Amino acid sequence: MADKVKLYAAGGSPFVCRVQIALNMKEIKYEKLEEDLHNKSADLLNYNPIHKKVPVLVHNGNPISESLVIIEYIDDVWKGVPILPQDPYEKAVARFWGKFIDDKCIIALFKVFGSHGDEQVIAEACEQLQILENELKVKGTKFFGGDNINLVDIAAGFIAYWLGMLEEATEIKFVTKDKFPKITEWADNFVNCRVVKEVLPPREYPPKEYLLALFKEQFGKE
Amino acid sequence: MADKVKLYAAGGSPFVCRVQIALNMKEIKYEKLEEDLHNKSADLLNYNPIHKKVPVLVHNGNPISESLVIIEYIDDVWKGVPILPQDPYEKAVARFWGKFIDDKCIIALFKVFGSHGDEQVIAEACEQLQILENELKVKGTKFFGGDNINLVDIAAGFIAYWLGMLEEATEIKFVTKDKFPKITEWADNFVNCRVVKEVLPPREYPPKEYLLALFKEQFGKE
Repeated sequence: MADKVKLYAAGGSPFVCRVQIALNMKEIKYEKLEEDLHNKSADLLNYNPIHKKVPVLVHNGNPISESLVIIEYIDDVWKGVPILPQDPYEKAVARFWGKFIDDKCIIALFKVFGSHGDEQVIAEACEQLQILENELKVKGTKFFGGDNINLVDIAAGFIAYWLGMLEEATEIKFVTKDKFPKITEWADNFVNCRVVKEVLPPREYPPKEYLLALFKEQFGKE
Repeated sequence: MADKVKLYAAGGSPFVCRVQIALNMKEIKYEKLEEDLHNKSADLLNYNPIHKKVPVLVHNGNPISESLVIIEYIDDVWKGVPILPQDPYEKAVARFWGKFIDDKCIIALFKVFGSHGDEQVIAEACEQLQILENELKVKGTKFFGGDNINLVDIAAGFIAYWLGMLEEATEIKFVTKDKFPKITEWADNFVNCRVVKEVLPPREYPPKEYLLALFKEQFGKE
Protein backbone atom coordinates (compact mmCIF):
# COMPACT_ATOMS: atom_id res chain seq x y z
CA MET A 1 0.00 0.00 0.00
CA ALA A 2 1.34 3.43 -0.88
CA ASP A 3 1.75 5.70 2.12
CA LYS A 4 -0.90 8.37 2.46
CA VAL A 5 0.49 11.37 4.33
CA LYS A 6 -1.47 14.52 5.13
CA LEU A 7 -0.22 17.56 7.02
CA TYR A 8 -2.61 20.01 8.66
CA ALA A 9 -0.88 23.36 8.46
CA ALA A 10 -1.39 27.09 8.99
CA GLY A 11 0.49 29.46 6.71
CA GLY A 12 3.85 30.44 8.07
CA SER A 13 3.81 28.44 11.32
CA PRO A 14 7.33 27.60 12.51
CA PHE A 15 5.95 24.47 14.17
CA VAL A 16 4.41 23.26 10.91
CA CYS A 17 7.64 24.16 9.12
CA ARG A 18 9.57 21.87 11.49
CA VAL A 19 7.51 18.95 10.21
CA GLN A 20 7.89 20.07 6.59
CA ILE A 21 11.68 20.10 6.97
CA ALA A 22 11.60 16.56 8.39
CA LEU A 23 9.34 15.35 5.56
CA ASN A 24 11.61 17.04 3.05
CA MET A 25 14.73 15.41 4.55
CA LYS A 26 13.09 12.01 4.05
CA GLU A 27 11.75 12.94 0.59
CA ILE A 28 8.18 12.05 1.62
CA LYS A 29 5.31 13.19 -0.58
CA TYR A 30 2.37 14.61 1.33
CA GLU A 31 -0.79 16.62 1.00
CA LYS A 32 -0.75 19.96 2.86
CA LEU A 33 -4.09 21.13 4.20
CA GLU A 34 -4.29 24.78 5.18
CA GLU A 35 -6.29 25.55 8.30
CA ASP A 36 -7.99 28.83 9.11
CA LEU A 37 -7.11 29.28 12.79
CA HIS A 38 -10.23 31.36 13.33
CA ASN A 39 -12.45 28.66 11.88
CA LYS A 40 -10.82 25.30 12.38
CA SER A 41 -11.94 22.34 10.29
CA ALA A 42 -13.87 19.43 11.80
CA ASP A 43 -10.98 17.20 10.70
CA LEU A 44 -8.42 19.15 12.72
CA LEU A 45 -10.63 19.14 15.82
CA ASN A 46 -11.21 15.43 15.36
CA TYR A 47 -7.53 14.59 14.82
CA ASN A 48 -6.18 16.78 17.64
CA PRO A 49 -9.06 17.09 20.13
CA ILE A 50 -6.76 17.86 23.07
CA HIS A 51 -4.78 20.82 21.75
CA LYS A 52 -6.82 21.70 18.62
CA LYS A 53 -3.64 22.96 16.99
CA VAL A 54 -1.51 22.52 13.91
CA PRO A 55 0.66 20.74 12.96
CA VAL A 56 -1.08 17.39 12.78
CA LEU A 57 0.39 14.66 10.60
CA VAL A 58 -1.99 11.94 9.46
CA HIS A 59 -0.21 8.84 8.19
CA ASN A 60 -2.47 6.17 6.69
CA GLY A 61 -5.31 7.47 8.83
CA ASN A 62 -3.32 7.72 12.09
CA PRO A 63 -3.07 11.27 13.47
CA ILE A 64 -0.01 12.54 15.38
CA SER A 65 0.29 15.93 17.11
CA GLU A 66 3.13 17.95 18.67
CA SER A 67 5.87 18.89 16.22
CA LEU A 68 8.79 17.15 17.96
CA VAL A 69 6.73 14.00 18.51
CA ILE A 70 5.86 14.03 14.80
CA ILE A 71 9.52 14.42 13.84
CA GLU A 72 10.54 11.44 15.99
CA TYR A 73 7.73 9.45 14.35
CA ILE A 74 8.93 10.39 10.87
CA ASP A 75 12.47 9.37 11.81
CA ASP A 76 11.22 6.05 13.27
CA VAL A 77 9.11 5.14 10.23
CA TRP A 78 11.07 6.34 7.22
CA LYS A 79 14.68 5.38 6.60
CA GLY A 80 17.04 7.60 4.60
CA VAL A 81 18.69 10.71 6.04
CA PRO A 82 18.59 10.36 9.85
CA ILE A 83 17.04 13.21 11.86
CA LEU A 84 18.06 12.00 15.31
CA PRO A 85 21.50 10.60 16.08
CA GLN A 86 21.71 6.78 16.08
CA ASP A 87 23.81 6.55 19.24
CA PRO A 88 21.51 6.37 22.30
CA TYR A 89 23.50 8.91 24.28
CA GLU A 90 23.71 11.40 21.41
CA LYS A 91 20.00 10.81 20.86
CA ALA A 92 19.24 11.65 24.50
CA VAL A 93 21.34 14.82 24.22
CA ALA A 94 19.39 15.87 21.10
CA ARG A 95 16.09 15.27 22.90
CA PHE A 96 17.33 17.30 25.86
CA TRP A 97 18.09 20.30 23.63
CA GLY A 98 14.83 19.98 21.69
CA LYS A 99 12.98 20.13 24.99
CA PHE A 100 15.10 23.04 26.21
CA ILE A 101 14.34 25.03 23.06
CA ASP A 102 10.59 24.46 23.41
CA ASP A 103 10.23 24.73 27.19
CA LYS A 104 12.69 27.54 27.87
CA CYS A 105 13.94 29.37 24.79
CA ILE A 106 10.88 29.86 22.61
CA ILE A 107 8.63 30.64 25.57
CA ALA A 108 11.14 33.22 26.88
CA LEU A 109 11.47 34.78 23.41
CA PHE A 110 7.74 35.01 22.93
CA LYS A 111 7.33 36.68 26.28
CA VAL A 112 9.50 39.52 24.95
CA PHE A 113 6.89 40.37 22.36
CA GLY A 114 4.03 39.72 24.78
CA SER A 115 5.57 42.24 27.19
CA HIS A 116 6.18 44.80 24.41
CA GLY A 117 9.92 44.55 24.99
CA ASP A 118 10.18 44.83 28.78
CA GLU A 119 13.90 45.01 29.59
CA GLN A 120 13.86 42.37 32.31
CA VAL A 121 12.01 39.99 29.99
CA ILE A 122 14.52 40.67 27.20
CA ALA A 123 17.36 39.93 29.65
CA GLU A 124 15.74 36.59 30.55
CA ALA A 125 15.33 35.65 26.88
CA CYS A 126 18.96 36.57 26.18
CA GLU A 127 20.02 34.34 29.06
CA GLN A 128 18.35 31.36 27.34
CA LEU A 129 19.80 32.27 23.94
CA GLN A 130 23.24 32.58 25.53
CA ILE A 131 22.98 28.91 26.54
CA LEU A 132 22.48 27.95 22.89
CA GLU A 133 25.28 30.35 21.84
CA ASN A 134 27.64 28.62 24.28
CA GLU A 135 26.57 25.17 23.10
CA LEU A 136 27.41 26.07 19.48
CA LYS A 137 30.75 27.52 20.62
CA VAL A 138 31.66 24.40 22.62
CA LYS A 139 30.63 22.08 19.80
CA GLY A 140 32.49 24.13 17.19
CA THR A 141 30.39 22.58 14.43
CA LYS A 142 28.32 24.14 11.65
CA PHE A 143 25.06 22.85 13.10
CA PHE A 144 23.83 21.52 16.42
CA GLY A 145 23.75 18.20 14.57
CA GLY A 146 27.39 18.51 13.46
CA ASP A 147 28.06 18.79 9.70
CA ASN A 148 24.35 18.35 9.02
CA ILE A 149 21.15 19.52 10.66
CA ASN A 150 19.32 17.28 13.12
CA LEU A 151 16.31 17.48 15.45
CA VAL A 152 17.91 20.28 17.48
CA ASP A 153 18.50 22.52 14.46
CA ILE A 154 14.96 21.91 13.28
CA ALA A 155 13.59 22.76 16.75
CA ALA A 156 15.67 25.95 16.82
CA GLY A 157 14.47 26.99 13.35
CA PHE A 158 12.20 29.60 14.89
CA ILE A 159 15.29 31.45 16.12
CA ALA A 160 16.92 31.32 12.69
CA TYR A 161 14.03 32.75 10.70
CA TRP A 162 10.83 33.80 12.49
CA LEU A 163 12.47 35.62 15.38
CA GLY A 164 13.98 38.23 13.03
CA MET A 165 10.61 38.78 11.37
CA LEU A 166 8.97 39.28 14.76
CA GLU A 167 11.73 41.73 15.72
CA GLU A 168 11.12 43.66 12.51
CA ALA A 169 7.34 43.59 12.86
CA THR A 170 7.42 44.79 16.46
CA GLU A 171 10.54 47.00 16.18
CA ILE A 172 11.93 45.23 19.25
CA LYS A 173 15.46 44.26 18.22
CA PHE A 174 17.62 42.45 20.75
CA VAL A 175 19.34 39.56 18.95
CA THR A 176 22.45 41.04 17.35
CA LYS A 177 25.47 39.57 15.61
CA ASP A 178 27.73 41.19 18.21
CA LYS A 179 25.93 39.56 21.10
CA PHE A 180 25.25 36.19 19.47
CA PRO A 181 27.89 35.62 16.76
CA LYS A 182 27.58 31.81 16.75
CA ILE A 183 23.78 31.83 16.61
CA THR A 184 23.88 34.39 13.80
CA GLU A 185 26.30 32.25 11.80
CA TRP A 186 24.29 29.11 12.51
CA ALA A 187 21.04 30.83 11.48
CA ASP A 188 22.59 31.83 8.17
CA ASN A 189 23.78 28.27 7.54
CA PHE A 190 20.43 26.83 8.59
CA VAL A 191 18.18 28.91 6.34
CA ASN A 192 20.52 28.17 3.44
CA CYS A 193 20.26 24.38 3.75
CA ARG A 194 18.44 23.06 0.72
CA VAL A 195 15.94 20.99 2.75
CA VAL A 196 15.13 24.06 4.84
CA LYS A 197 15.14 26.73 2.13
CA GLU A 198 12.71 24.73 0.02
CA VAL A 199 10.00 24.83 2.68
CA LEU A 200 10.48 28.15 4.51
CA PRO A 201 7.50 30.45 4.01
CA PRO A 202 8.40 33.59 2.05
CA ARG A 203 9.49 36.50 4.27
CA GLU A 204 6.57 38.59 3.02
CA TYR A 205 4.14 35.81 3.67
CA PRO A 206 3.23 35.62 7.34
CA PRO A 207 2.17 39.21 7.93
CA LYS A 208 2.76 40.65 11.39
CA GLU A 209 -0.85 40.16 12.54
CA TYR A 210 -0.85 36.57 11.35
CA LEU A 211 2.41 35.72 13.08
CA LEU A 212 1.27 37.27 16.34
CA ALA A 213 -2.08 35.46 16.14
CA LEU A 214 -0.24 32.21 15.58
CA PHE A 215 1.86 32.71 18.67
CA LYS A 216 -1.11 33.66 20.74
CA GLU A 217 -2.61 30.40 19.56
CA GLN A 218 0.47 28.39 20.54
CA PHE A 219 1.32 30.14 23.79
CA GLY A 220 -1.96 31.75 24.69
CA LYS A 221 -1.98 30.23 28.16
CA GLU A 222 1.52 31.32 29.07
CA MET B 1 33.18 -3.28 31.02
CA ALA B 2 30.48 -3.39 33.66
CA ASP B 3 27.97 -0.56 33.42
CA LYS B 4 28.42 2.15 35.98
CA VAL B 5 25.11 3.87 36.69
CA LYS B 6 24.64 6.73 39.14
CA LEU B 7 21.39 8.55 39.88
CA TYR B 8 21.38 12.01 41.44
CA ALA B 9 18.22 12.14 43.52
CA ALA B 10 16.38 14.20 46.11
CA GLY B 11 14.31 12.35 48.66
CA GLY B 12 10.75 11.85 47.57
CA SER B 13 10.90 13.54 44.16
CA PRO B 14 8.29 12.14 41.76
CA PHE B 15 10.61 12.99 38.87
CA VAL B 16 13.45 10.97 40.38
CA CYS B 17 10.99 8.18 41.14
CA ARG B 18 10.06 8.01 37.45
CA VAL B 19 13.67 7.12 36.67
CA GLN B 20 13.85 4.65 39.54
CA ILE B 21 10.79 2.82 38.20
CA ALA B 22 12.39 2.60 34.75
CA LEU B 23 15.68 1.32 36.22
CA ASN B 24 13.73 -1.18 38.29
CA MET B 25 11.80 -2.42 35.24
CA LYS B 26 15.10 -3.12 33.51
CA GLU B 27 16.67 -4.60 36.69
CA ILE B 28 19.61 -2.19 36.49
CA LYS B 29 21.85 -1.80 39.53
CA TYR B 30 22.76 1.81 40.31
CA GLU B 31 24.16 4.06 42.96
CA LYS B 32 21.71 6.65 44.31
CA LEU B 33 23.25 9.95 45.39
CA GLU B 34 21.07 12.14 47.56
CA GLU B 35 21.24 15.87 46.86
CA ASP B 36 20.46 18.62 49.33
CA LEU B 37 18.42 21.04 47.18
CA HIS B 38 19.51 23.95 49.35
CA ASN B 39 23.18 23.11 48.90
CA LYS B 40 23.64 21.31 45.62
CA SER B 41 26.78 19.30 45.00
CA ALA B 42 29.45 20.42 42.53
CA ASP B 43 28.79 17.17 40.65
CA LEU B 44 25.11 17.95 40.13
CA LEU B 45 25.88 21.48 38.92
CA ASN B 46 28.53 20.10 36.63
CA TYR B 47 26.33 17.33 35.21
CA ASN B 48 23.21 19.49 34.76
CA PRO B 49 24.51 23.06 34.36
CA ILE B 50 21.42 24.24 32.47
CA HIS B 51 18.63 23.23 34.86
CA LYS B 52 20.67 22.40 38.01
CA LYS B 53 17.98 19.87 38.95
CA VAL B 54 17.53 16.22 39.83
CA PRO B 55 17.13 13.66 38.41
CA VAL B 56 20.41 13.24 36.57
CA LEU B 57 21.46 9.80 35.40
CA VAL B 58 25.17 9.27 34.79
CA HIS B 59 25.91 6.19 32.71
CA ASN B 60 29.59 5.34 32.31
CA GLY B 61 30.42 9.01 32.85
CA ASN B 62 27.75 10.40 30.48
CA PRO B 63 25.15 12.60 32.21
CA ILE B 64 21.51 12.79 31.09
CA SER B 65 18.85 15.15 32.48
CA GLU B 66 15.06 15.48 32.18
CA SER B 67 13.15 12.48 33.51
CA LEU B 68 11.33 11.50 30.31
CA VAL B 69 14.52 11.89 28.26
CA ILE B 70 16.31 9.65 30.77
CA ILE B 71 13.55 7.03 30.52
CA GLU B 72 13.78 6.95 26.73
CA TYR B 73 17.56 6.55 27.07
CA ILE B 74 17.15 3.65 29.50
CA ASP B 75 14.72 2.00 27.10
CA ASP B 76 17.09 2.55 24.15
CA VAL B 77 20.14 1.13 25.92
CA TRP B 78 18.86 -1.75 28.02
CA LYS B 79 16.81 -4.58 26.59
CA GLY B 80 14.33 -6.56 28.73
CA VAL B 81 10.90 -5.26 29.66
CA PRO B 82 10.02 -2.50 27.15
CA ILE B 83 9.02 0.91 28.54
CA LEU B 84 7.86 2.45 25.28
CA PRO B 85 5.76 0.57 22.73
CA GLN B 86 7.72 -0.96 19.84
CA ASP B 87 5.28 0.13 17.13
CA PRO B 88 6.22 3.62 15.87
CA TYR B 89 2.67 4.93 15.97
CA GLU B 90 2.00 3.60 19.47
CA LYS B 91 5.35 5.05 20.49
CA ALA B 92 4.36 8.48 19.17
CA VAL B 93 1.05 8.27 21.04
CA ALA B 94 2.91 7.43 24.28
CA ARG B 95 5.25 10.40 23.75
CA PHE B 96 2.25 12.64 23.12
CA TRP B 97 0.68 11.67 26.45
CA GLY B 98 3.96 11.95 28.35
CA LYS B 99 4.32 15.48 27.04
CA PHE B 100 0.69 16.27 27.83
CA ILE B 101 1.12 15.10 31.43
CA ASP B 102 4.22 17.25 31.92
CA ASP B 103 3.20 20.35 29.98
CA LYS B 104 -0.47 20.53 30.92
CA CYS B 105 -1.54 18.22 33.73
CA ILE B 106 1.21 18.50 36.33
CA ILE B 107 1.62 22.24 35.80
CA ALA B 108 -2.16 22.76 36.19
CA LEU B 109 -2.21 20.58 39.32
CA PHE B 110 0.69 22.38 40.90
CA LYS B 111 -0.95 25.74 40.24
CA VAL B 112 -3.81 24.58 42.49
CA PHE B 113 -1.48 24.44 45.47
CA GLY B 114 0.38 27.58 44.38
CA SER B 115 -2.95 29.45 44.34
CA HIS B 116 -4.01 28.00 47.73
CA GLY B 117 -6.96 26.25 46.09
CA ASP B 118 -8.46 29.03 43.94
CA GLU B 119 -11.69 27.62 42.47
CA GLN B 120 -11.00 28.66 38.90
CA VAL B 121 -7.54 27.10 39.09
CA ILE B 122 -9.02 23.88 40.49
CA ALA B 123 -11.54 23.83 37.63
CA GLU B 124 -8.71 24.16 35.11
CA ALA B 125 -6.75 21.32 36.73
CA CYS B 126 -9.86 19.12 36.73
CA GLU B 127 -10.29 19.84 33.03
CA GLN B 128 -6.82 18.39 32.35
CA LEU B 129 -7.43 15.40 34.63
CA GLN B 130 -10.73 14.77 32.86
CA ILE B 131 -8.79 14.30 29.62
CA LEU B 132 -6.76 11.51 31.26
CA GLU B 133 -9.95 10.07 32.80
CA ASN B 134 -11.54 9.92 29.34
CA GLU B 135 -8.43 8.36 27.82
CA LEU B 136 -8.49 5.55 30.40
CA LYS B 137 -12.22 5.06 29.77
CA VAL B 138 -11.78 4.87 26.00
CA LYS B 139 -8.83 2.48 26.27
CA GLY B 140 -10.62 0.27 28.79
CA THR B 141 -7.30 -1.16 29.93
CA LYS B 142 -5.75 -1.49 33.39
CA PHE B 143 -2.94 0.92 32.54
CA PHE B 144 -2.25 3.59 29.94
CA GLY B 145 0.23 1.02 28.60
CA GLY B 146 -2.42 -1.74 28.40
CA ASP B 147 -1.95 -4.77 30.66
CA ASN B 148 1.36 -3.37 31.86
CA ILE B 149 2.68 0.07 32.71
CA ASN B 150 4.61 2.07 30.12
CA LEU B 151 6.11 5.56 29.78
CA VAL B 152 2.68 7.20 30.16
CA ASP B 153 1.89 5.47 33.45
CA ILE B 154 5.34 6.35 34.78
CA ALA B 155 4.86 9.99 33.74
CA ALA B 156 1.46 10.08 35.44
CA GLY B 157 2.84 8.56 38.65
CA PHE B 158 2.68 11.94 40.36
CA ILE B 159 -1.10 11.82 40.06
CA ALA B 160 -1.25 8.31 41.51
CA TYR B 161 0.79 8.98 44.63
CA TRP B 162 2.14 12.48 45.31
CA LEU B 163 -1.02 14.38 44.45
CA GLY B 164 -2.94 12.76 47.32
CA MET B 165 -0.14 13.63 49.73
CA LEU B 166 -0.18 17.23 48.58
CA GLU B 167 -3.97 17.32 48.99
CA GLU B 168 -3.60 16.01 52.53
CA ALA B 169 -0.75 18.34 53.39
CA THR B 170 -2.57 21.43 52.12
CA GLU B 171 -6.11 20.29 52.97
CA ILE B 172 -7.15 21.13 49.42
CA LYS B 173 -9.02 18.03 48.24
CA PHE B 174 -10.45 18.02 44.73
CA VAL B 175 -9.61 14.65 43.16
CA THR B 176 -12.35 12.28 44.28
CA LYS B 177 -13.34 8.76 43.32
CA ASP B 178 -16.77 10.05 42.27
CA LYS B 179 -15.35 12.58 39.88
CA PHE B 180 -12.47 10.49 38.57
CA PRO B 181 -13.36 6.80 38.97
CA LYS B 182 -11.00 5.57 36.25
CA ILE B 183 -8.03 7.58 37.48
CA THR B 184 -8.67 6.38 41.04
CA GLU B 185 -8.75 2.77 39.92
CA TRP B 186 -5.65 3.24 37.77
CA ALA B 187 -3.79 4.94 40.64
CA ASP B 188 -4.54 1.99 42.89
CA ASN B 189 -3.29 -0.46 40.28
CA PHE B 190 -0.21 1.64 39.59
CA VAL B 191 1.03 2.00 43.16
CA ASN B 192 0.52 -1.73 43.64
CA CYS B 193 2.75 -2.76 40.72
CA ARG B 194 5.82 -4.49 42.11
CA VAL B 195 8.28 -2.35 40.10
CA VAL B 196 6.56 0.79 41.38
CA LYS B 197 5.89 -0.22 44.98
CA GLU B 198 9.52 -1.18 45.49
CA VAL B 199 10.76 2.35 44.78
CA LEU B 200 7.97 4.66 46.01
CA PRO B 201 9.13 6.81 48.90
CA PRO B 202 7.28 6.01 52.14
CA ARG B 203 4.16 8.14 52.65
CA GLU B 204 5.63 9.64 55.83
CA TYR B 205 8.87 10.42 54.11
CA PRO B 206 8.54 13.56 52.04
CA PRO B 207 7.18 15.95 54.67
CA LYS B 208 4.88 18.72 53.47
CA GLU B 209 7.58 21.41 53.49
CA TYR B 210 9.96 19.19 51.56
CA LEU B 211 7.39 18.32 48.92
CA LEU B 212 6.41 21.96 48.43
CA ALA B 213 10.07 23.02 48.23
CA LEU B 214 10.64 20.36 45.61
CA PHE B 215 7.80 21.65 43.50
CA LYS B 216 8.94 25.22 43.84
CA GLU B 217 12.28 23.94 42.60
CA GLN B 218 10.72 22.20 39.59
CA PHE B 219 8.14 24.79 38.66
CA GLY B 220 9.51 27.91 40.30
CA LYS B 221 9.29 29.91 37.09
CA GLU B 222 5.72 28.98 36.23
